[in-house]
Amino acid sequence: MDEQKIPYKIYLDESEIPSKWYNVRADMKNKPAPLLNPGTLKPMTAEELAPVFCEELVAQELNDTDAYIDIPEEIQNFYKMYRPSPLIRAYFLEKALDTPAKIYYKFEGNNTSGSHKLNSAIAQAYYAKKQGLKGVTTETGAGQWGTALSMACSYFGLDCKVYMVKVSYEQKPFRREVMRTYGASVTPSPSTTTNIGKKILADHPGTTGSLGCAISEAVEVATTTEGYRYVLGSVLNQVLLHQSVIGLEAKAAMDKFGIKPDIIIGCAGGGSNLGGLISPFMGEKLRGEADYRFIAVEPASCPSFTRGKFAYDFCDTGMVCPLAKMYTLGSGFIPSANHAGGLRYHGMSSTLSQLYHDGFMEATSVEQTSVFEAAEKFARVEGILPAPESSHAIRVAIDEALKCKETGEEKTILFGLTGTGYFDMVAYEKYNDGVMTDYIPTDADLEKGFAGLPKIDL
Amino acid sequence: MDEQKIPYKIYLDESEIPSKWYNVRADMKNKPAPLLNPGTLKPMTAEELAPVFCEELVAQELNDTDAYIDIPEEIQNFYKMYRPSPLIRAYFLEKALDTPAKIYYKFEGNNTSGSHKLNSAIAQAYYAKKQGLKGVTTETGAGQWGTALSMACSYFGLDCKVYMVKVSYEQKPFRREVMRTYGASVTPSPSTTTNIGKKILADHPGTTGSLGCAISEAVEVATTTEGYRYVLGSVLNQVLLHQSVIGLEAKAAMDKFGIKPDIIIGCAGGGSNLGGLISPFMGEKLRGEADYRFIAVEPASCPSFTRGKFAYDFCDTGMVCPLAKMYTLGSGFIPSANHAGGLRYHGMSSTLSQLYHDGFMEATSVEQTSVFEAAEKFARVEGILPAPESSHAIRVAIDEALKCKETGEEKTILFGLTGTGYFDMVAYEKYNDGVMTDYIPTDADLEKGFAGLPKIDL
Repeated sequence: MDEQKIPYKIYLDESEIPSKWYNVRADMKNKPAPLLNPGTLKPMTAEELAPVFCEELVAQELNDTDAYIDIPEEIQNFYKMYRPSPLIRAYFLEKALDTPAKIYYKFEGNNTSGSHKLNSAIAQAYYAKKQGLKGVTTETGAGQWGTALSMACSYFGLDCKVYMVKVSYEQKPFRREVMRTYGASVTPSPSTTTNIGKKILADHPGTTGSLGCAISEAVEVATTTEGYRYVLGSVLNQVLLHQSVIGLEAKAAMDKFGIKPDIIIGCAGGGSNLGGLISPFMGEKLRGEADYRFIAVEPASCPSFTRGKFAYDFCDTGMVCPLAKMYTLGSGFIPSANHAGGLRYHGMSSTLSQLYHDGFMEATSVEQTSVFEAAEKFARVEGILPAPESSHAIRVAIDEALKCKETGEEKTILFGLTGTGYFDMVAYEKYNDGVMTDYIPTDADLEKGFAGLPKIDL
Repeated sequence: MDEQKIPYKIYLDESEIPSKWYNVRADMKNKPAPLLNPGTLKPMTAEELAPVFCEELVAQELNDTDAYIDIPEEIQNFYKMYRPSPLIRAYFLEKALDTPAKIYYKFEGNNTSGSHKLNSAIAQAYYAKKQGLKGVTTETGAGQWGTALSMACSYFGLDCKVYMVKVSYEQKPFRREVMRTYGASVTPSPSTTTNIGKKILADHPGTTGSLGCAISEAVEVATTTEGYRYVLGSVLNQVLLHQSVIGLEAKAAMDKFGIKPDIIIGCAGGGSNLGGLISPFMGEKLRGEADYRFIAVEPASCPSFTRGKFAYDFCDTGMVCPLAKMYTLGSGFIPSANHAGGLRYHGMSSTLSQLYHDGFMEATSVEQTSVFEAAEKFARVEGILPAPESSHAIRVAIDEALKCKETGEEKTILFGLTGTGYFDMVAYEKYNDGVMTDYIPTDADLEKGFAGLPKIDL
């Protein structure tokens, strides 16, 4: 197709919103390792998972054979509120970089929750409602997931209890207010509303909390309150399944214009966006139908893929959750205090971990000042203020485009722009003031995290 | 056309972005009164306006005969970054209200500046660049205009000096950081960088500033600095001209589906959004080709249309700007401290004032707790967190839809959703906490403002 005819923004029609999610596990020869019961060290059964997760979500979590799963009509209707999301040709960025590369990004920040998290939040809320539950509990760090879930619960009339890492609760009052506007109750974690919270507060008075701790609190409340279940915004197989709408739409939009990406780039914290973006492309690669370079980008301060171990580990600090086999820094690992954005989870999706282990994708890490440099450049030319998380992908997309400038190659680059940075201006202020710093953990720092890995030989 | 076929979001193609702005003044029999030189009380000439505004913008300001003015290609290109903006059918809201009314809204918050202000900011920055200027100065209150202008100036490589009302500068540090990220310098007003600022600080130590004061500072810097001009985000004829892209796109999208609105609703502060949204529809009404009900919605705490006088008044506190004939509360009027959103300007666009005076449109005022009630309801069902300003229009759109529920009428309602509320969470917090209050100025309060009106008899 004539280059000039590709618009700045490719919008699919509403009728082209996917009606099925794609389950990449179905096409994997080496399936992701199962979740283990931390007591028996045996694979978690549906029955064992049912007190924690909604029934249909348990089925999705365990389903590694069906390639496509129908998206219920109610969820498709909700998707129409903000989907299809635009696939944007970064003409302005290409011009600023003077690169022969063709850069595209799938923009998922185009909804009030400000990120792709809504794609899975609405699905999880739907299944909770369908099961007749009263509400759900969850944790949130930076607040994107909590915001998305509060929107989804508001839509279905479900109660939503969010445990927000205390330091974020205090530093991000606006995120908290968005959640409250959508009717959620937001509790700073650790709190005195749970046994695990009380214990942590007693052991560590004055702690500002962590994601792993908030997960433990949310799980405790879900499993001890009639009519509640726990929901999680990343890491899990079910979340990657729901997020496949990102990749399916991106692929449909590219196919429509005959565009084939050479490189697909996504930021990686727990893997929800990266897994969703790449899955249909990865499916083609796994089936031998096409080849792509996939690059996971993580913060140098929390380098699960690039410096972690591929091992069974706890998903939470309180060690009440099942064990997952993943690239991990150890459940006790916490990024240094100067770390600004999200992407601070110690582990990584089991599905992505297996694909990385088997050589189907690459990973790289970047330092945060270079990430904000890329964010600012991008904001100024493309007009979107990106989330710090998303800017990890921008950094590497720019680097790859600059390599093309060196070599003269006209590669096509696709990256995921997961969200907007409106609630991250404290970090931008640090960058604007020139006081943002980098930190790369030493090998000794990492060894401390690895020392907490459970001793399991399977 | 079959009702079912109207999608949730109507996106025009990029090729349908308007290539000309529509100048409603050309179709007005009674033209808006000219700006007056405050010294001579004679209409301002192009020569007199040239030290303040860019040349081509002066020409646009004074042009009340040409119905269409070409949009330069560079501006059209920039528009592709975020336009066409979606026209959204509020199916979710209609269902929640159980109304037979059909509700549409044109959503202009779909860009990083978060509002429609970017439509004029990019035009004004373009003409400044074309004239070979080094930079521009402006004022900003809530920060939407300053953000939009900083984005526009960054795109054209212009310096951008923003005088931000001190209370907003301190209470909205995140807005300030967005502007800095786009390379603007932001100074709290009143400041010691101008003579007028120094005088105001000497006379009123500890003042937290006002929009009228920040305008005076910005104009002083523009007129005393080589290579700078002043730009303004509302009120002026040129701004309404640029903002006509909102109405032109909305009308094109509606025409495409054979939709004719019965009622068109916009919030009104200085008039930039309202004027832009209604202008092509108003043109039809003025030419006798169609009829529409237009409703301007303003805050009860700053009721220019509904309780102001139609008179010549100063545009700024320092009284350095030309006089404009408009509905005004007096240049000394300041809304009460509990007023949360924007829409706090004492006057109103001369063009809209004339149209209102001549009976072509209606106006109403609403109290802020009812505005936030509407905002919350809208956010929960439509998924967009609206700006407080925009929520004035939402309030009246909901009220009109509920009237239809009473009468059974299937009216078609179009309103302007000017922006998002991500930077207004302090106000939402007050509403969430149940501590938001209303205030309606007494007649005595208004008389104080009217007492400051210049004594001009023309």
